[in-house]
Amino acid sequence: MATVEGGTDGWDENQLRKYTFPTTQLQRMSCKDPRLNDVIAREEPVVITDCNLASSASHWSLEYLSSNIGNGTFSVYESDSHLFKYFDEKKIPGHKDFRPEMRRKEMKFNDFVALMQNPEQRRFYLQQPLNDTVGPQVVKDFLQFNWDFAKEQQKRNGWGPLTSNLLLIGMAGNVTPCHYDEQENLFAQVRGYKRVILFPPEQFSCLYPYPVHHPHDRQCQVDFENPDYERFPLFKDVAGQEAVLGPGDVLFLPMYWFHHFESLLDGGLTTSVTFWYKAPPVGKVEYPLKPQQKVAMMRNIEKMITEALNDQHEVAPFMRNMVLGRYTSDDL
Amino acid sequence: MATVEGGTDGWDENQLRKYTFPTTQLQRMSCKDPRLNDVIAREEPVVITDCNLASSASHWSLEYLSSNIGNGTFSVYESDSHLFKYFDEKKIPGHKDFRPEMRRKEMKFNDFVALMQNPEQRRFYLQQPLNDTVGPQVVKDFLQFNWDFAKEQQKRNGWGPLTSNLLLIGMAGNVTPCHYDEQENLFAQVRGYKRVILFPPEQFSCLYPYPVHHPHDRQCQVDFENPDYERFPLFKDVAGQEAVLGPGDVLFLPMYWFHHFESLLDGGLTTSVTFWYKAPPVGKVEYPLKPQQKVAMMRNIEKMITEALNDQHEVAPFMRNMVLGRYTSDDL
Ligand SMILES: [Zn+2]
Ligand SMILES: [Zn+2]
Repeated sequence: MATVEGGTDGWDENQLRKYTFPTTQLQRMSCKDPRLNDVIAREEPVVITDCNLASSASHWSLEYLSSNIGNGTFSVYESDSHLFKYFDEKKIPGHKDFRPEMRRKEMKFNDFVALMQNPEQRRFYLQQPLNDTVGPQVVKDFLQFNWDFAKEQQKRNGWGPLTSNLLLIGMAGNVTPCHYDEQENLFAQVRGYKRVILFPPEQFSCLYPYPVHHPHDRQCQVDFENPDYERFPLFKDVAGQEAVLGPGDVLFLPMYWFHHFESLLDGGLTTSVTFWYKAPPVGKVEYPLKPQQKVAMMRNIEKMITEALNDQHEVAPFMRNMVLGRYTSDDL
Repeated sequence: MATVEGGTDGWDENQLRKYTFPTTQLQRMSCKDPRLNDVIAREEPVVITDCNLASSASHWSLEYLSSNIGNGTFSVYESDSHLFKYFDEKKIPGHKDFRPEMRRKEMKFNDFVALMQNPEQRRFYLQQPLNDTVGPQVVKDFLQFNWDFAKEQQKRNGWGPLTSNLLLIGMAGNVTPCHYDEQENLFAQVRGYKRVILFPPEQFSCLYPYPVHHPHDRQCQVDFENPDYERFPLFKDVAGQEAVLGPGDVLFLPMYWFHHFESLLDGGLTTSVTFWYKAPPVGKVEYPLKPQQKVAMMRNIEKMITEALNDQHEVAPFMRNMVLGRYTSDDL
């Protein structure tokens, strides 16, 4: 069983997928660094190297979890490719032609373990909130997370309540394609190596997220492996920040930042735990609005228009009528 | 002085300006036609040929008005060309580069008459609401308008209050370029001949009105005499309905219908009186929304975005980010 587990002894460049756009290295910082708090307060992403947020889970091998995680049900996604592109099941009914690229299956943890040992070319990704079905040993590990650090960040930055801790166990080479979330995230890498590529909300125009009413809401439409520059010309201007997260690393992933994750090629399983927090309450509005605020505003406008028209198929023509030839030139 | 007055004995095709797009003839109907009420109820434009709405003004020559209209002040627009393109003075402050194509002058009626007899190539257009400064003879003519007809239409169609009667006196060849208004209009042609070209609100996408925050709000950006098909490609699909309005004709001009007016070339002065009514109250919303309702909705969204961003220069980039590559294809 040890062969499928992710390692702790480094990685090399060949384990990274190749893309067309440039990236710079994401900043890494000790939690003792006096600048860290300012970085987080400014909503800048950063890899925190030594806060031990989920170090108490470092022994969560498949074997250990198999014996201790309990008899609850786990959501496991199966994909035909290496891409695990999230979709919102509630938004499928209005989109009859929508064909999801992955399927969710509910199973016991041992069934997942059996799939991991299956030699077939099928790919799986376990994504399950830690809940009260976990066994006493895992509860103990969970209680030993560095809650002091998490709560200090929550308080200092005015984040809302913790909404969930998602346990992610992915196969080597799995990719979570580029998207943004609407919550603040402390992303703790527990076992194996995961690469993250981040784009600031300013790059919204280069990344072309799906319409809000679409099941792929918040996901980029652009295929990073084969960008369609005709449809998405500004993708040529995109530039990322990247890091490889190893065991013990914690990524502060600010709300509305776009992110792409990949479990390194031939790197074994990757295990991560997310700490998602609701957004801080909206403060005093200052102008000009921040890019994050504009994304939130766009989402509201898109929802409002979709609701007012009462027919998703009318949204795109309405948008085009409002904008094309009217707001597509700056000389007015 | 008689030479500048508009005639009553017809017109010919050479007096019409030439444009690139096709038109059909607008329907003409007697007010005794039993179908008229339905046409108006459906918000379709129609020329009513015999309702005598403003026939009591048929003797309003310059000479008569000069003696009887009183000592009030009149708004007279002066343009360097034949185009009188309306602009909203309140929206100029945010648009430093805006240069209006016409200027408003306030003057006594006799000064306007003097200008009409001036041989210079300057062009003028009197556009003044009839108010309480008019003399007793003109009051008497005004009271003899066919108010029964106007009030019956107002009541039958649930229009709001009459907001104003605008007196329009234009020189031959003057053009009011294509725009829409936000009120219902009974447009009474009193003297001379005026051509009107109408486009339904469905053709919004072909006509590219300026952004709502622009001083030329509600006006089409497309120059009918020299269309820029690169910027306004759908103008190729535009198709109008037209009529020449002569003395006694009354055009029902529904709210949100685009309209272009021209005083016929070499036709002398044209005199018209508008009867503007506020929109009916919004009734029960039914889907799909009507094109008029979508235009109203767009206006509200544009206003909301402009206000929320608090900077007009941010509106166009925001709109583009929201729409380009995201709502410009129908395959989602
Ligand atoms: Zn995410
Ligand atoms: Zn008008």
